[in-house]
Amino acid sequence: MFEVLERDGLGRIGVIETRHGPVTTPALLPVVNPNRPIIRPADLATRFGAEILITNAYILGKSPQRDEILRKGVHEFLGFPRAIMTDSGAFQSHVYGGIDVTNREVVEFQRRIGVDLGTMLDVFSEPGEDHDRAAADVDETIRRAKETVSLRGEMRVVAAVQGGLHSDLRERCAREISSLDASVYAIGGVVPLLESYRFRDLVRVIVASKKGLDPSRPVHLFGAGHPLVFPLAALLGCDLFDSASYAKYARAGRMLFSDGTRRASEMRESGCLCAVCTSHSMDEIARNESLLAEHNLHACFGAIREVRRAIAHGDLWELAERRARAHPALLTALRELRRHNEFLEEYEPLSRRAALYYVGPETAHRPVLHRIRRRLAERYAPPPAKGLVVLPEGDRPFSERNAHIVERILASGEVHVVVKSVWGPVPLELDHIWPMSQTIVPDTLDTEALEAAEVFFREWAAGAGYPFGVLWEGDTTLDEVRTRAPGARTVDWNALRIRATADLQFGHGSADALLEGNVSYILSKNTGKVRNVFVDGEHVLSLRAEDGFFTLKAAGARRLLKAFSPPALRVVVDADSVPFHREGKNVFAKFVRDADPDLRPGDEALVVSPDDELCAVGQVEMNRREMLAFKRGVAARVREGVPPPPSAPPH
Amino acid sequence: MFEVLERDGLGRIGVIETRHGPVTTPALLPVVNPNRPIIRPADLATRFGAEILITNAYILGKSPQRDEILRKGVHEFLGFPRAIMTDSGAFQSHVYGGIDVTNREVVEFQRRIGVDLGTMLDVFSEPGEDHDRAAADVDETIRRAKETVSLRGEMRVVAAVQGGLHSDLRERCAREISSLDASVYAIGGVVPLLESYRFRDLVRVIVASKKGLDPSRPVHLFGAGHPLVFPLAALLGCDLFDSASYAKYARAGRMLFSDGTRRASEMRESGCLCAVCTSHSMDEIARNESLLAEHNLHACFGAIREVRRAIAHGDLWELAERRARAHPALLTALRELRRHNEFLEEYEPLSRRAALYYVGPETAHRPVLHRIRRRLAERYAPPPAKGLVVLPEGDRPFSERNAHIVERILASGEVHVVVKSVWGPVPLELDHIWPMSQTIVPDTLDTEALEAAEVFFREWAAGAGYPFGVLWEGDTTLDEVRTRAPGARTVDWNALRIRATADLQFGHGSADALLEGNVSYILSKNTGKVRNVFVDGEHVLSLRAEDGFFTLKAAGARRLLKAFSPPALRVVVDADSVPFHREGKNVFAKFVRDADPDLRPGDEALVVSPDDELCAVGQVEMNRREMLAFKRGVAARVREGVPPPPSAPPH
Repeated sequence: MFEVLERDGLGRIGVIETRHGPVTTPALLPVVNPNRPIIRPADLATRFGAEILITNAYILGKSPQRDEILRKGVHEFLGFPRAIMTDSGAFQSHVYGGIDVTNREVVEFQRRIGVDLGTMLDVFSEPGEDHDRAAADVDETIRRAKETVSLRGEMRVVAAVQGGLHSDLRERCAREISSLDASVYAIGGVVPLLESYRFRDLVRVIVASKKGLDPSRPVHLFGAGHPLVFPLAALLGCDLFDSASYAKYARAGRMLFSDGTRRASEMRESGCLCAVCTSHSMDEIARNESLLAEHNLHACFGAIREVRRAIAHGDLWELAERRARAHPALLTALRELRRHNEFLEEYEPLSRRAALYYVGPETAHRPVLHRIRRRLAERYAPPPAKGLVVLPEGDRPFSERNAHIVERILASGEVHVVVKSVWGPVPLELDHIWPMSQTIVPDTLDTEALEAAEVFFREWAAGAGYPFGVLWEGDTTLDEVRTRAPGARTVDWNALRIRATADLQFGHGSADALLEGNVSYILSKNTGKVRNVFVDGEHVLSLRAEDGFFTLKAAGARRLLKAFSPPALRVVVDADSVPFHREGKNVFAKFVRDADPDLRPGDEALVVSPDDELCAVGQVEMNRREMLAFKRGVAARVREGVPPPPSAPPH
Repeated sequence: MFEVLERDGLGRIGVIETRHGPVTTPALLPVVNPNRPIIRPADLATRFGAEILITNAYILGKSPQRDEILRKGVHEFLGFPRAIMTDSGAFQSHVYGGIDVTNREVVEFQRRIGVDLGTMLDVFSEPGEDHDRAAADVDETIRRAKETVSLRGEMRVVAAVQGGLHSDLRERCAREISSLDASVYAIGGVVPLLESYRFRDLVRVIVASKKGLDPSRPVHLFGAGHPLVFPLAALLGCDLFDSASYAKYARAGRMLFSDGTRRASEMRESGCLCAVCTSHSMDEIARNESLLAEHNLHACFGAIREVRRAIAHGDLWELAERRARAHPALLTALRELRRHNEFLEEYEPLSRRAALYYVGPETAHRPVLHRIRRRLAERYAPPPAKGLVVLPEGDRPFSERNAHIVERILASGEVHVVVKSVWGPVPLELDHIWPMSQTIVPDTLDTEALEAAEVFFREWAAGAGYPFGVLWEGDTTLDEVRTRAPGARTVDWNALRIRATADLQFGHGSADALLEGNVSYILSKNTGKVRNVFVDGEHVLSLRAEDGFFTLKAAGARRLLKAFSPPALRVVVDADSVPFHREGKNVFAKFVRDADPDLRPGDEALVVSPDDELCAVGQVEMNRREMLAFKRGVAARVREGVPPPPSAPPH
């Protein structure tokens, strides 16, 4: 029922199919208070484009109109033709300290009134709860989740993750409910964190929950209705948000903006472009709760669309970094992210369309840069040389100027050149890959960034057991380098690039495997850069201009298959689907049996049969965890089918 | 003709009166190409609320319709009922390398077609020009500015600042044209900087120009039409912006946003709330140049309104800091600002309504914090004590927790306590003043911020010749402090606060002058904090809850008058206006003869006659430079008039 259309790390644009139409995610679910709807539900659909709303089953069940609701069903009762989700009363039990219905009652009521997504009555873990207490909440929540699924009938179920601030409990709860037949997972118990701007704790809770959750289902962040947090939460893989804030803040005369909250009465103009702000004076708005609520809804829906735009363009990370400057507590949360890089990195694409912007010392710790540094340490081997020349990043990293200097330095002696960049060490023969090739860095850097550049460099040089002493460091004259590293040779710059890129992209030793034999290449007429690589007359690799990585050809894939044992670089498909891939058909996730856990979205992969026979070459769109979880969607986009070897038995 | 209504540093909301109605600043002037108006000028007024537009006199003068334009006048010709400014062709001479009209011709043409603001034909200095060449441009520009003013007739004149990247030339040019009767000053020659994202150079050019310009006139930043730069430019005191970008980018299929530029064809949705984006599909928009232009105008006007909102609320600095994360080149510019703190600080208000947010290592260098550190070094004397206890900032600076610890530490021995904060050292008896009392800092800080805290602290301790050794540093237990600093005394916490605040606010020695005699104070019943301070039965000071600074009473003012010789703390008014101030009337700038150059907007001041007789006490709204320049507006808001002493001769 949930299909992912586009992704940016853990963030994704998807569609949830419901009996009342599709819901595009990330989605905002406006909260409708059935006793006091400040905006008519019908208007939410027509005027605000809401594809789904959320209301409260507990309140509906206690309503004097209960019988009418049961008779008409929730859609007719509210007059809303699109999808409806209901909450169960868990939040009310947090507010009032307890409620007088059981999980069974509230689930059955939801089913009877025909909601599209009905929520279990989970046990709200307060952030201050100790481990024992929270563990008990988790146990009871899991018990009720199972009960809910057994009672669901035709209704789709929302199962909740609880566990307070205890990461192990969050992850366990998530893992357990992931084994149940729920359509949406909700992360609950976070409203107290949101209310007190504890966004670092929010990050920890979401990450721990996401680690345990089945990645193929949408995740709802319960109670997150302020546009401030949408980019960060979407970046961590939350797909659904519900906003009661639009109405609550309106009642208090306050207006939501993507950079914070402001009191209407304190402004003469808002700078907002929405229909309310551009057609009413601020005085009018301040005095009119409905106008305030409408503005707030516009702001929330606009912020959600902005998140979708960023995911589609691949700059969700930049959006989250910018938004972090709206409040110091968000900056704290942004600084927390680096602690979760091992998890976040798994979902990061190989490259993005957009240039990578440095916007603060946090940028250097983005998971995609963490990966580059790790792959460099694990996969890359410096070329034989007598010494290392370290170039400081300087004003314009990876610029024409640098490339030029470097070629001359290399030609001047047997030295190897590495730029000490703010992202980490960049061997000059790798400065064409994304993001090294497309970063924009301020002309002056803060101390933390400069120190990070040092630390990254030292770690790499030490960890890689770098065999050479540093010959020369700094940006004095080229002549000095010449003096210290005399002798001259002609460097085949393209050969260096090809070897280094292959190792970095496919793993240590790949260059040897791919390039054994008589290597030749075709250069682009426009750029003079390598385009296609041939070995012994076979086309093994093409270099993509966009991101500087290779596209793998069948001949190259055969070489890698021989050189690396499973599961490296593989996506293993069901035997039944092998013939289709041999014909060039894409690999759908549901046919994947296993995959290399080191594959990342955008990586090239060998599509193999259960017997490890190569049947296609393609680019994966998911990591292993996702391939094994998703029942819909493309796991790998096949670029080239590989016919069976003449000797192979037919399938 | 220009009146400032609200200010935030150099940023200001003002009104320019023209024959075609008022123009609220900061204002955006859409550029209308008379040969190809993509949006009808009439619509600019009605649909976009434009109060002023700009078109090109050089192009109008070359038009086949020249005669018609001369006959009808520019307003009727364009069909625009509000104010019209014309540019002269200087930019065309930059683009084409020269044009075939003289300054005299273009000025006379502008006058004849009835423009509200006519621009001289300045000499466009290219950024790469050397000092000699740029100096020649400046000389010729000044000559033409004088000629323009002599020819202006009824037309109001826009005089331009040139000088390329040479700060001394910019400042000289600005100073010279400030002596002429021009209504608007324009900073010219910056389009090449804007086009290549050289925002650091832009900062240098604006600051150098502003240093020389008369602060009472509006400043136009020629060619700045992208919302990215509005907050930064407004922060530096630019009031008018003209946008051809809305049309130029539309022609290229590109959309402007406050955080950058995006290609319409690459988006499915923009996240923008404007009328175009919410009522058309992105496909439609991408194919329609008019819709693109309309969106771009909405985005520009919205961004200008957002700047006005921020000025009114006192958080323009935060807006500029947030916006700096939209592009690394803006971050470079933000990091440049600290080099101009001596100038920027003069315009900074004493306090703001809003809390001060830490959003990155640049925040600690904001001019208002630079001032606090300087005033602390110059004005504040630590109380007598045997040792210094340094508290690290910790998770929650200036919190209740800290205040509590400190009172106990102080009570435990004769030690003085200073928090080593990211803003600089904060003696604990000053933690109630803005912004120390209202800062929000992330829980984890970057290295540059932590180092800055160290450096600020050491500079203060060394520069102030701090007489004590540091007894204890760190956040171990209170008991440790007790052990090392034994003895007990009861500290009059309120007395410490009063003394320290008085010295910091009015200058070193103020506490002695203000508090000589029998001191008593009234505490607030709600907060327990000092509200009013009496000395020998006279009410000398009131402490403001909002920002922790004093309101000066007449009795206090008399004491300061005696203690400090002129010009300290004074605003000297014309003899004629003395009787009005004695009755409590405000001080208008045009009656100010002189003032203390150390006064800052928000400071308390003694309003004195030319003979240095106290005639009122009030709060200044301008610095000295502004008081002497402005012919309109309030220089000091009088809170209390002071009658002449019985012995004084009547005025």
